[in-house]
Amino acid sequence: MRAITVIPGRPDSLRLDGDHPEPGPDEGAVLVEAIAVGVCGTDHEVIEGGHGEPPPGLDSLVLGHESLGRVIEDPTGSLTPGDLVAGIVRYPDPVPCSNCAADEWDMCRNGRYTEHGIKGLPGFARDRWRVPPKFAVRLDPKLGRLGMLLEPTSILAKAWEHIERIGSRSTWEPHTVLVTGAGPIGLLAALLASQRGFEVHVLNRTASGAKPALVEALGARFHTGDVARIESEFDIVLECTGAPPVILDAMCKAAPNGIVCLTGVSTGGRTIDFDAGALNRALVLENNVVFGTVNANRRHWELAAEALAAADPDWLDTMISRRVPVEAYAEAYQREPDDIKVVIDFQR
Amino acid sequence: MRAITVIPGRPDSLRLDGDHPEPGPDEGAVLVEAIAVGVCGTDHEVIEGGHGEPPPGLDSLVLGHESLGRVIEDPTGSLTPGDLVAGIVRYPDPVPCSNCAADEWDMCRNGRYTEHGIKGLPGFARDRWRVPPKFAVRLDPKLGRLGMLLEPTSILAKAWEHIERIGSRSTWEPHTVLVTGAGPIGLLAALLASQRGFEVHVLNRTASGAKPALVEALGARFHTGDVARIESEFDIVLECTGAPPVILDAMCKAAPNGIVCLTGVSTGGRTIDFDAGALNRALVLENNVVFGTVNANRRHWELAAEALAAADPDWLDTMISRRVPVEAYAEAYQREPDDIKVVIDFQR
Repeated sequence: MRAITVIPGRPDSLRLDGDHPEPGPDEGAVLVEAIAVGVCGTDHEVIEGGHGEPPPGLDSLVLGHESLGRVIEDPTGSLTPGDLVAGIVRYPDPVPCSNCAADEWDMCRNGRYTEHGIKGLPGFARDRWRVPPKFAVRLDPKLGRLGMLLEPTSILAKAWEHIERIGSRSTWEPHTVLVTGAGPIGLLAALLASQRGFEVHVLNRTASGAKPALVEALGARFHTGDVARIESEFDIVLECTGAPPVILDAMCKAAPNGIVCLTGVSTGGRTIDFDAGALNRALVLENNVVFGTVNANRRHWELAAEALAAADPDWLDTMISRRVPVEAYAEAYQREPDDIKVVIDFQR
Repeated sequence: MRAITVIPGRPDSLRLDGDHPEPGPDEGAVLVEAIAVGVCGTDHEVIEGGHGEPPPGLDSLVLGHESLGRVIEDPTGSLTPGDLVAGIVRYPDPVPCSNCAADEWDMCRNGRYTEHGIKGLPGFARDRWRVPPKFAVRLDPKLGRLGMLLEPTSILAKAWEHIERIGSRSTWEPHTVLVTGAGPIGLLAALLASQRGFEVHVLNRTASGAKPALVEALGARFHTGDVARIESEFDIVLECTGAPPVILDAMCKAAPNGIVCLTGVSTGGRTIDFDAGALNRALVLENNVVFGTVNANRRHWELAAEALAAADPDWLDTMISRRVPVEAYAEAYQREPDDIKVVIDFQR
């Protein structure tokens, strides 16, 4: 069968393996035929050689962690042939930490997790894959072309759950939300904000492509330019760029008792001249919270599946900038200016 | 009667008024004779003219927000003559915000609160004061010389409540605590950490005076030097210096899922060269939280009263560096190198 593979640590090793072995029963009871995989920044990092780890004993890693497939068989009876599913990315170590033992592998304390297509587990960019039933999440049938958005949505479902849980430390009635960055993560953050009935503002560096219309279709307001130039403060800020100057300005945009959620993974290594005393003073005197969040556990994947099922499929479809057939896989990994989400299609 | 007053905004206006009017019944039903007030950084800011606001229609403000007194009368019957009490500092506006309406004036959203000895309400540095019963907190009788520590302890009781509530966003089993700064706030943070059974580390710039022995008496470990040079990471970091380089280093000392609580009010106005991308990356990939906290509501004052009652009175007494009679008030506001907490005694 076909699989998109890379040799972690070796740039330019990306290729389409036309004769990849079928997934073994040790990978899980649920056999799935791939419909599509989404491409994200982590895939680029793996391809560029800066990230990624093959399964034990192998040199190469199947890419792909944003999955969508159709169940072929599930002898456990959890799922029915024909069900649309996405595969959860992260798995706890067989000897779990206290968080992994509580099925909160997104909060793994010791780093000994594995991740499909990233760290020690083959990805979903192959014609067929297998997962244990607990790691397959069923999707609404109407998400047949869109379900690979479940993985990025799970990140935001976790972010929103943590925002709400942290906010409940005191009486809190948030009304306004600022999202920095209108990539897939920022747009899905805004979608979940609008589903909660908030007044939503989205800031992006530029106004080209489909982003302004996508934001406005949510009833949200689209901004360009510097965060610092927006005059309001916001009860909730979701930082989705990972760009250091934006992050620091976003931290200063929280209203009293406000919460800033960081979702972007920055590279680091560059210093900025910065008034840390003023930031600290504002955080203290306004009871502000800044927190980072990564990954998602099954609870968040299920919340994400509900959020996607409740969204307008046309809106979600507009987020898909390009659908590339698997044979032209290399094009999918080349960035184009107005890309939002690029998808590799296994059924064309 | 005697009162220590200042004209807010006018440096060098501190004086002892020997003929200050008695507190009026409009100030509250509970009449209290002062035993002592504690001195803190906010008092210095008010005296230096950078902070503080007199009650409406007056030029001068009675200082003092860390109070201890003995009830003379309470016609409402909430308190009994002879009860030891401290007065809560902050009061909500008559037209409260949603947090003030829920008695969480520490989380006031609109800044329209008043504060004894700081903002629009006379302080407790006077022979007699009055408060409504809801704003008087009863103390264990054994705290007769120490109860003015209740106000700073309330700040930490709130900090710890928020740490625990934020921590409950997921499974969390914290074990280790780092406190930066061994002033009164840092020492009380360490006291409450040790009461919770944590492994506690306290870092201070220098090792002179009573601080190392106070830390060690809690079963905690005392460190000097740079935060960055401590090799461990900590589940909980309580930042109690407000010094920008310490704050940034402290933020980087959180273990996975760790929580950094900022309690120090920095001045700001000075920039530091800083790798914000690396901090963001660590916060995101480790699910870290950084939050600021200020003030405390009645729930926290009651938790603080329990914490002080459970503490060793000799340990608390060692925190009191100097007890200055009210007639020598000016000495209390002069900083000396090994001061921890300076107290003005109204009964000597």
